[in-house]
Amino acid sequence: MIGIDWGTSRFRAFRLAADGAIRDHKSSARGILAVPDGRFADSLREEIGPWLAAGERHVLMCGMVGSRQGWVEAPYLPCPAGPEELAAALVDVPFDWAEVKLVPGLAGVDADGVAEVMRGEETQLAGALARLGSEVAAACLPGTHSKWARVAAGRITGFATHMTGEAFAALRGHTILGRTMQDGTATVPAAFDRGVARAARPGGLLHHLFGVRAEALAGQLAPGDGASYLSGLLIGHEVKAALADVAAGSVVPVIGAPELTALYARAIEAGGGIAERINGEAAARGLSLIGGRIGWR
Amino acid sequence: MIGIDWGTSRFRAFRLAADGAIRDHKSSARGILAVPDGRFADSLREEIGPWLAAGERHVLMCGMVGSRQGWVEAPYLPCPAGPEELAAALVDVPFDWAEVKLVPGLAGVDADGVAEVMRGEETQLAGALARLGSEVAAACLPGTHSKWARVAAGRITGFATHMTGEAFAALRGHTILGRTMQDGTATVPAAFDRGVARAARPGGLLHHLFGVRAEALAGQLAPGDGASYLSGLLIGHEVKAALADVAAGSVVPVIGAPELTALYARAIEAGGGIAERINGEAAARGLSLIGGRIGWR
Repeated sequence: MIGIDWGTSRFRAFRLAADGAIRDHKSSARGILAVPDGRFADSLREEIGPWLAAGERHVLMCGMVGSRQGWVEAPYLPCPAGPEELAAALVDVPFDWAEVKLVPGLAGVDADGVAEVMRGEETQLAGALARLGSEVAAACLPGTHSKWARVAAGRITGFATHMTGEAFAALRGHTILGRTMQDGTATVPAAFDRGVARAARPGGLLHHLFGVRAEALAGQLAPGDGASYLSGLLIGHEVKAALADVAAGSVVPVIGAPELTALYARAIEAGGGIAERINGEAAARGLSLIGGRIGWR
Repeated sequence: MIGIDWGTSRFRAFRLAADGAIRDHKSSARGILAVPDGRFADSLREEIGPWLAAGERHVLMCGMVGSRQGWVEAPYLPCPAGPEELAAALVDVPFDWAEVKLVPGLAGVDADGVAEVMRGEETQLAGALARLGSEVAAACLPGTHSKWARVAAGRITGFATHMTGEAFAALRGHTILGRTMQDGTATVPAAFDRGVARAARPGGLLHHLFGVRAEALAGQLAPGDGASYLSGLLIGHEVKAALADVAAGSVVPVIGAPELTALYARAIEAGGGIAERINGEAAARGLSLIGGRIGWR
């Protein structure tokens, strides 16, 4: 079968063997926002035509392609949900060259009852959790809007989104903090760790933020370290809040791109958790797993 | 005597009676950044010439006029400090029409030993604390960069700055949160209180921020309420962190402009403190008090 994670800005496809192994894969910038005039079927033919020509007949998709802005809107499935519930709620997509189905996103509430939604992460989580023990209680998908899922017996029971990545960009780009920072993308681990350590202290994030400037002005923070320190501060605060109701010593899967999961793993380990880094191909495993439940191989 | 609070963007002067009463006052946009080519003496003559012509001979100033970008740099005085220490550390300013002195700013450290400085707030605090009981343990000066002072027996023992106002502007103006907010400056009290209540919950500020969007998308937050809710969330988090080591039921002076102290008072009361609002003329009282210690009336 073919598995596809079709997001807002990226298209990623996997040609999967019967045992879930990735036989081939491709990735392009044809996210759903780059598809003109709703021409999703044409786009799909162009992206995976050779695999279909080679005999693949089953295509399972997840991600924003199932949103209102996507190809066919797949209603959110309520939590708790795992691979079984997701497989039972697949949505058919009309397509002439193959059988195409969509994994629905999930709707949940945070600990205060505020509505939350995800599309695509549920499939990555399904893939990641299948390879871990059933005692996992929380999992993290870092990003511009990081998601922390609460998990029980391999099913997602709820989740919470943290605006960490976007807050970093706004604070760095549009406050006084950016003035003492040098450009550059590489994170300085020691400075990141200092930010994480500071986040563990009392005082609150809004005070800690000002401290980035105070320490820079006092010569306690090198200009090249400022952005890494700010990143550690924000990720440290996110992880501290998210781990508050997770038992110390728990395994916490962190699913995503390697650069970002490396940073989150540092913060999770500093906070007493055991980080288990899982790369973005968790989506391929999740698609294979869910497809397998309806007999697709 | 004449008391002047000369800040970055505002010039505020008070003609004071011997008992500290304000006989006259004036305010202009001639902050230190609006003084060209270091012409502070000329600016002062233009601003308060009539009072000097009427016989005033003593001028006491506080604020950024004593910074490196100001008229004469007054070295920071270390905490702990109160009116007595401030009066003993006044800095002379050369001026031909009157005797002019500067109140130095304060240098302190936050609870983690990070360097903090203030200029002008120490004088407002001196004025405010003189009118309150000696049992006050903490005081708040809200603003773009809010300051919370730790106080013992009327002296400032340390302080911490929170980047609340600037973070609000960056998050509203440069993240997805602003998209669901209407323009307008008036705060909606019920929406502000909802933000404060949310800040008291677990989950962390970065998650609560995303909730502003989640609640708006779910129809749980009216477009006209978004900015007030965000304001309550940020001020609520600041106040929660600042009150963490202040005994419940304590009187907390809040010094500043009425619109802002009204909001902080709501958050402080919600957090179990007793807010005592004091307007910006605390600076006049502080200048009178400090001047009185060197015999100026």
